[in-house]
Amino acid sequence: MIETPYLLFLGDAPDQLAAKVAQGIKDWRPEYAVGQYRMEGCKADMGLPDLDLPAAKAAGCKTLVIGVANRGGIISPAWKEVLVTALEQGFDIASGLHNLLRDEPELVAIAREHGRSLHDVRVPSVQYPIANGVKRRGKRMLAVGTDCSVGKMYTALCMEKELRARGQKATFRATGQTGILITGNGVPLDAVIADFMAGSIEWLTPDNDADHWDLIEGQGSLFHVSYSGVTLALVHGGQPDALVLCHEPTRPHMRGLPGYKLPSLEDLRDVALRLAQVANPACKVVGVSVNTQHMSEDEAKAYLAQVEADLSLPATDPFRFGAAKLVDALDAI
Amino acid sequence: MIETPYLLFLGDAPDQLAAKVAQGIKDWRPEYAVGQYRMEGCKADMGLPDLDLPAAKAAGCKTLVIGVANRGGIISPAWKEVLVTALEQGFDIASGLHNLLRDEPELVAIAREHGRSLHDVRVPSVQYPIANGVKRRGKRMLAVGTDCSVGKMYTALCMEKELRARGQKATFRATGQTGILITGNGVPLDAVIADFMAGSIEWLTPDNDADHWDLIEGQGSLFHVSYSGVTLALVHGGQPDALVLCHEPTRPHMRGLPGYKLPSLEDLRDVALRLAQVANPACKVVGVSVNTQHMSEDEAKAYLAQVEADLSLPATDPFRFGAAKLVDALDAI
Repeated sequence: MIETPYLLFLGDAPDQLAAKVAQGIKDWRPEYAVGQYRMEGCKADMGLPDLDLPAAKAAGCKTLVIGVANRGGIISPAWKEVLVTALEQGFDIASGLHNLLRDEPELVAIAREHGRSLHDVRVPSVQYPIANGVKRRGKRMLAVGTDCSVGKMYTALCMEKELRARGQKATFRATGQTGILITGNGVPLDAVIADFMAGSIEWLTPDNDADHWDLIEGQGSLFHVSYSGVTLALVHGGQPDALVLCHEPTRPHMRGLPGYKLPSLEDLRDVALRLAQVANPACKVVGVSVNTQHMSEDEAKAYLAQVEADLSLPATDPFRFGAAKLVDALDAI
Repeated sequence: MIETPYLLFLGDAPDQLAAKVAQGIKDWRPEYAVGQYRMEGCKADMGLPDLDLPAAKAAGCKTLVIGVANRGGIISPAWKEVLVTALEQGFDIASGLHNLLRDEPELVAIAREHGRSLHDVRVPSVQYPIANGVKRRGKRMLAVGTDCSVGKMYTALCMEKELRARGQKATFRATGQTGILITGNGVPLDAVIADFMAGSIEWLTPDNDADHWDLIEGQGSLFHVSYSGVTLALVHGGQPDALVLCHEPTRPHMRGLPGYKLPSLEDLRDVALRLAQVANPACKVVGVSVNTQHMSEDEAKAYLAQVEADLSLPATDPFRFGAAKLVDALDAI
């Protein structure tokens, strides 16, 4: 568990996109995003107060979160002085970069000296169990995609926000690095050892109140040959009551796999539901979430209407048009 | 790669079953099984010459393989003297036990001193790539099961033996600890990090001669909620041309999962084929391998006839009745 609130470190980000982790935190957990720290030449801006370390401390920040990635996902030497000083001044540090904080001897030594924690959310910090398949209380929604990176995390976050706005009990459950940095906890599923994947998702989504929804961030796709095993572990470990199909209609091929076409939404519905019913025979496909960012508003609305007609399921772009339809569908089961 | 041939270490095995890894090596790679080493009180016997370490050395043995498991899968203190002496006399040691050789400081020190290798086949020794899904030359068969431990390894080994007896090119590809100790190499798939599972199977079954068959050992089951992700990584990373369905008809429930029924062979056929065709649209289900060890010969034959009638596929228990039908089916595609 990463201590909140955060000081978002934007470093020397060359553009706004390079700071997308910080953007995710600011968009989805504004209450954690107390301020930003920008170095000379930083081109990203979250619209948050620029705080130096003492000001961030005074504002209550507990953890400096590396909210920027450079090419290669490494810890830039240019950042080192700020990171060292932050540890000395009593901040923990959290990072989702490929290059781990724990592999930087200087940071490790200073963190130890000052009793601070280094959180590398790319690697698991828990010994997960083997999944036991025992039926759990509470309800769970899993976002499943036709492909990787089609908007499964945003779908789950949008649904959590809508449920909470309606006064219902809901928890977003992060299964990837960005989601973990947004919420402060979760399972970095792609780094879990094979035998423990499904068990890690059981651990992440335990028994809960009967009227509580876990909104589980999906990973990969059952149709993506590189990562499909990770996805199936989510389908079986998550024991979902509801599946939301996620899709990005403008992809020329599966992400990173030239020559592999995307499956149809009907294919995804049939295969994901059949497999999900192994763990929960009552599981239903409740709706479709379409990432329409590369479509005009008219195109998007026409596409969504077509999906609704073809699949007889509610369809929306929850980030663009709201998640109300999807949450109505959860309420109906 | 573990150097062969082997001296099979049976230790103080309390019964024959405790030495099943040694039995597997002796059954499937008799040319590697030069002799056995039994301690006082050992109740297992592979019918091999009992060799002490100098005699095994003289017979050409390169590696002492721990072919026995005790309760808990630990390296027994009682074995230590033999293991230490073996290293001193120039043997490598290989083990599939949960308790790793590398975690025994005394063995590590002596191995280093004498320039010997310790092979813990429970953990990966290779940095596997992310799967790229690129079509490979050569042909691949994957054994898929209705459940775990239904005979997938024996099915693949029986088919390799039959293909080779017919003078065809074939390689058994091990994906678990016992299979790796039998053949000297493979991928311990259940210990691979999630993101690299499918890639490890691509690595294991690379481009080959057009008329060469890789016989891939299956793991888990698409219907076993604890391990299904591991299985799907095999289906997609293996890019199989042929699937053989494996089944054990007397199971009361899925292994380790009371309350979870086994799927039907028809369910397995449909789900496995749909998923396999993502990676190889030409993939076919070619036959059924039934583990009939808990049936009389008459019961077994009647059951196999029924399966053939129901599924219109050749069905055999390849260990009991031979793998000819399954290999005929491979030849037909």
